[in-house]
Amino acid sequence: MSSNLPSYLTISTEINSDLSKAIETLNPDKIVVLVDENTKKYCFPHLHVSVDAQIEIQSGEQYKTLETCIKIWTQLTAIGCSRKSLLINLGGGVIGDMGGFAASTYKRGMPFINIPTTLLSQVDASIGGKLGVDFEGLKNHIGVFQNPVCVIINTAFLKTLPERELKSGFAEIIKHALIRDAEQWEYLNRHSFEKINWNEIIPKSISIKSKVVQEDPFEADARKILNYGHTIGHALESHFLNSDTPLLHGEAIALGMILENEIAATVGLLSQGESAEINEFIRSVYNLNLQLPNYEMLRSHLLQDKKNDAQGIRFSLLKKIGACAHDVLVEETVLKNILK
Amino acid sequence: MSSNLPSYLTISTEINSDLSKAIETLNPDKIVVLVDENTKKYCFPHLHVSVDAQIEIQSGEQYKTLETCIKIWTQLTAIGCSRKSLLINLGGGVIGDMGGFAASTYKRGMPFINIPTTLLSQVDASIGGKLGVDFEGLKNHIGVFQNPVCVIINTAFLKTLPERELKSGFAEIIKHALIRDAEQWEYLNRHSFEKINWNEIIPKSISIKSKVVQEDPFEADARKILNYGHTIGHALESHFLNSDTPLLHGEAIALGMILENEIAATVGLLSQGESAEINEFIRSVYNLNLQLPNYEMLRSHLLQDKKNDAQGIRFSLLKKIGACAHDVLVEETVLKNILK
Repeated sequence: MSSNLPSYLTISTEINSDLSKAIETLNPDKIVVLVDENTKKYCFPHLHVSVDAQIEIQSGEQYKTLETCIKIWTQLTAIGCSRKSLLINLGGGVIGDMGGFAASTYKRGMPFINIPTTLLSQVDASIGGKLGVDFEGLKNHIGVFQNPVCVIINTAFLKTLPERELKSGFAEIIKHALIRDAEQWEYLNRHSFEKINWNEIIPKSISIKSKVVQEDPFEADARKILNYGHTIGHALESHFLNSDTPLLHGEAIALGMILENEIAATVGLLSQGESAEINEFIRSVYNLNLQLPNYEMLRSHLLQDKKNDAQGIRFSLLKKIGACAHDVLVEETVLKNILK
Repeated sequence: MSSNLPSYLTISTEINSDLSKAIETLNPDKIVVLVDENTKKYCFPHLHVSVDAQIEIQSGEQYKTLETCIKIWTQLTAIGCSRKSLLINLGGGVIGDMGGFAASTYKRGMPFINIPTTLLSQVDASIGGKLGVDFEGLKNHIGVFQNPVCVIINTAFLKTLPERELKSGFAEIIKHALIRDAEQWEYLNRHSFEKINWNEIIPKSISIKSKVVQEDPFEADARKILNYGHTIGHALESHFLNSDTPLLHGEAIALGMILENEIAATVGLLSQGESAEINEFIRSVYNLNLQLPNYEMLRSHLLQDKKNDAQGIRFSLLKKIGACAHDVLVEETVLKNILK
C-alpha cells in the first residue's frame, strides 16, 4: 500500500526524528515555522527542532488571503530568509496551502516542509502540490502547483481536534472511496465514524489520491475526478465564507457530493439507488440542515470554477461507487431544478 | 547559432503569422492582451489578431508591484478567463515579468505569450522564465520560474524606442559578451553603438544567455553568472527607484558592472588592465555621473540579494573577458572602500 504514496510523504510515528533527518539533508541557513494560534499552542510544543523564527497567522479560511500572504512575505524578508532557508508549515490546509504558496513565490522559491495537523490536510492538502490563497472571495483563485520538500503526517495530532474538524476531514476520505475504491467504501460503511482507526484509513485514502495525482499532476484531465463534490462544494463554501455560519471545507464538500449525486442521477449517469445509498450515508455523518443560497447567487460562484471553459460549468460526477466521470457539462435547467 | 535558442523563442519578421500559428495550436477560449500606455499606442496597432479584452497598466518599474498584479488578477477574473484562456504580454520587461507572474498564478496557471518590445526585454527577460514583481522596494522579490508558451521577438518594435531605452537594453548585451563570449566583446568594440545591426547582435546575445540558462534553469549554480553587474546594479536601481532621478535597469547594471569590475580587480580575480578596458568602454556609452548612495544604505539593499546566504553577500565577478566566477564572498572592507 505504502508504495503508492508519493516519495516526499512520510506517515510518521517519530515526527522529530523524521523532521531532523529532512532538515539535515536540506541543510537550510535559517528555519522558520508558520503556525496559527491553535497549532502554536497544541502542536508546536511537540516539535523538538531549533527554529530561528516563528510566524503566526490567525486560523480560519477567512484569513487565507493575499493580505495574510503579504504579512508572511514581509516577515520572511525581515527575518532575512534566503532561497536556502526553510519554512515549516505546521497546521491545517490553510497553513499548508498559503505557507506553501508564500514560500514558492518568495525570491522565486524557498523550500518548505508541510506538517499537516488536521485530518482534512493529512488526507487531502498533503498530496498534489496545489498551493494558493483565496481572492475576491474565490477559493484558491491565486496559486501555483509545487510540491513540498517533504510532508510528515503524524496521526497523534488528530487527538487535539474537535469532532466537527475530524468530520470535515472525513468528507475527503468518503470522496476518495467513492471516486476510485468501492472496497474502501464498503469499509467505511461497515465502521461507524466513531470507531474508525485513523492509522489504517489515512494511508489508504492518501494512496487513492496519490495514484490519481500521479496520473495527471497538473489536472489536465483525469485528476479532475478529485473535484467530485467540489464544484458545488466550493460555491457553497465561498457563499457562506463571510456569513454568520461559515461551513468547514469538508461540510461544504459533503453537501456538494449530495447535490452532485442528485445531478448525476438526474442526467442518468449514476443509478438512483446508489445516489440514495451514498446520500443517506453522508447525511448520517453530517448535520446539513441549512438554507441553500438562491440559484443566481450560487451560479455566480459556479461560473468561477477552475475546470470551466467557454462552453459552461463542468462537473466531475459519479458513474457508480468507485468510478467517476469528469468534464461533464450539465444543462442549466437541471442545475436550477436541483439547486433551487 | 539559432540552434542555441530555446525552442519556445522565435525571432520573427512576420509577427502576425507567427502569433496566429501559436494561437491556433493553443486554441484558447479567450485572448487577453496586457499593454501599457506606450505599447497600446505604438505596438498594439501592429497586431492583427482578434482579442477579447485589453488590460492596460501604467508603464515603469515603479508599477511592477503586487498592487498592479492585483489589478491584473481582478480584470482577468472580471473578463471570465479560465485556465484555457491566453494572456499576451505586449511590452518591455515589466509587462513580461509581471504579466507572466499574474498568468502563472491565476487559477494556478493560465498560458501566456510574451512579445517583448524593448531591446532590454528582447535580449534579457525573453529567456529564462524569471517572473515576478518588486515587493517592499526589493527587485523581483516575489515571483516564480515559468516559461511562456512562446516568445516572439520582432526588432521592428525597437524603432519606437528612445535612445536612452535602447542603451539600457545594450547593457545586457555587453554583459552577455563579458561573461561568456570574448568574440562578441570584440565585435561590440569594433562597432559604435549607433552602427550596431540589431538583427545580427540580438540572436547572438540571446543565444549566450540561453546556453547559460539551459545548463542551470533554476539558478542553483552556473546561471548565477548572469547576475554579473546585478548585485550592485539591483541595489542602485532599488535605491533610486523612488527618487527624482530613477535609473533605467540597464543604466543601473552598467554602473553595477563598473563597480563589480573594480571589486574583481581589487581581490585579484580580474586584471587591472581588463577592468580598465571594460570600464572605459561602458563609460563611453553611458552618462553615469551620479552620486552613489552612502554605503550603509546600499548595503541594506545588497543584503536582500537572492544569491546571498548566511555567510554574506555573494557576487558574480569577471575572471577575464569572456569568463565569470560566481558565489564570490567579498569582504566588507573591500566593499566599503569601493562603494564609499
